[in-house]
Amino acid sequence: MSEQTPRQGSGYSAWRLIAEELRADITEGHLAVGDKLPTESALAERFAVNRHTARQALAALASDGLVESRRGSGTFVTGGAIHLHRIGMRTRMSSSIGTRGTPHGRVLESATEAPPTRIGRRLGIERGLGVRVETLRTVDGQPLALGTHWFDAERLPDIAASLRRTASITAALRASGIDDYVRVETVASARHATAAEASLLKLDPGAIVLVTESVDALLDGTPLQHSVARFAAQRVKLDIEHTPPLGR
Amino acid sequence: MSEQTPRQGSGYSAWRLIAEELRADITEGHLAVGDKLPTESALAERFAVNRHTARQALAALASDGLVESRRGSGTFVTGGAIHLHRIGMRTRMSSSIGTRGTPHGRVLESATEAPPTRIGRRLGIERGLGVRVETLRTVDGQPLALGTHWFDAERLPDIAASLRRTASITAALRASGIDDYVRVETVASARHATAAEASLLKLDPGAIVLVTESVDALLDGTPLQHSVARFAAQRVKLDIEHTPPLGR
Repeated sequence: MSEQTPRQGSGYSAWRLIAEELRADITEGHLAVGDKLPTESALAERFAVNRHTARQALAALASDGLVESRRGSGTFVTGGAIHLHRIGMRTRMSSSIGTRGTPHGRVLESATEAPPTRIGRRLGIERGLGVRVETLRTVDGQPLALGTHWFDAERLPDIAASLRRTASITAALRASGIDDYVRVETVASARHATAAEASLLKLDPGAIVLVTESVDALLDGTPLQHSVARFAAQRVKLDIEHTPPLGR
Repeated sequence: MSEQTPRQGSGYSAWRLIAEELRADITEGHLAVGDKLPTESALAERFAVNRHTARQALAALASDGLVESRRGSGTFVTGGAIHLHRIGMRTRMSSSIGTRGTPHGRVLESATEAPPTRIGRRLGIERGLGVRVETLRTVDGQPLALGTHWFDAERLPDIAASLRRTASITAALRASGIDDYVRVETVASARHATAAEASLLKLDPGAIVLVTESVDALLDGTPLQHSVARFAAQRVKLDIEHTPPLGR
């Protein structure tokens, strides 16, 4: 029982810790879609807090769409909040995220400028300019991911304009004569959202972003695009593709 | 500037938000290894907080090993804190994590019991018993990951004892006559650590775990192991393998 008592005095609220325990129960399947959550008074007893704090925790989960309260009968897991984003050799953001609901992507900002050293090196444009495009992807109006995309400005001078028009990286690249490309690198990590990210993704302070840093390349291996995507972790999981070995 | 002002009143400390902004700058490469961080007074001005709050943010990063302060010259990025964990068809936890430093794995707890419905179904043991093994993986004494592993108790009755002895899943499976297996499913997500996880992984309240839920199978496709790993997000990134397409 002592392990269940949220620790105080670290600038981290009791209701938030309780919400996170329940969120873990739901996202890891200990509580399934349709299951009833413990009542406010049961939660208050389990975590040694008052009912108001327990209610705040449930309200936080409800505001994420993870649970819904039904008058007179309690709070239930909806499971409606999690989108799976596929990560594989031929993943296209436009088709892989938001298979439920209506996806929408838009360009927030773009610029032609010198890329950070590390990114310039990865794209093979240490001395040249890059096109940086900032995007926001939503499903049914709910923000799921922010993206920062870098391209070689010499190879793709019109990519930002194409992206604004098509709202699809695949379509924008096709408009520039690139019909095919593959994912060659993805590194996934997680951290707290910055204030700017929280604002654009409509997240509370302290919310988490799942970050992927990736490189796409032409079929001959030439680097094409460097991207950093920040997914609202409470709404998105990454579904990693494992290609069967040769000969199967 | 207004975007930089940490929001108050949500149970989330100003120093923590500042630490997260700086952490993002470091993990995404805007600040590289060896770079000097802004001074306390520069941070205090940029985030509109007092110097004590700025100092707390820097101390939090230092305690994670992400920066170090050198007397008289300032605070610098060490970059020493991040381990890459490879996720691929043939990933073995023992070889993929902690390539820097001395890795160590140990069994915290094990039990033979009925698995949760969802896991039982995935392993094809809805009516049988499973062996559940809880593990902790450290590198140089620093906790990196907690694991919850499920196996078919009928197929692998001795797996927990083997794991305690060998501290390696690959070796324990070999002792049970299983020489080869492949990863067939991985889903990655992120959430706040529960109180119990934070305690075992030596994380502060509010810290993040990167969670992978995975299934390994025999080469004929028979499910072998269901695992949930919780990585300390401030210490681990996931390096996702992209197998080249056939014919390359």
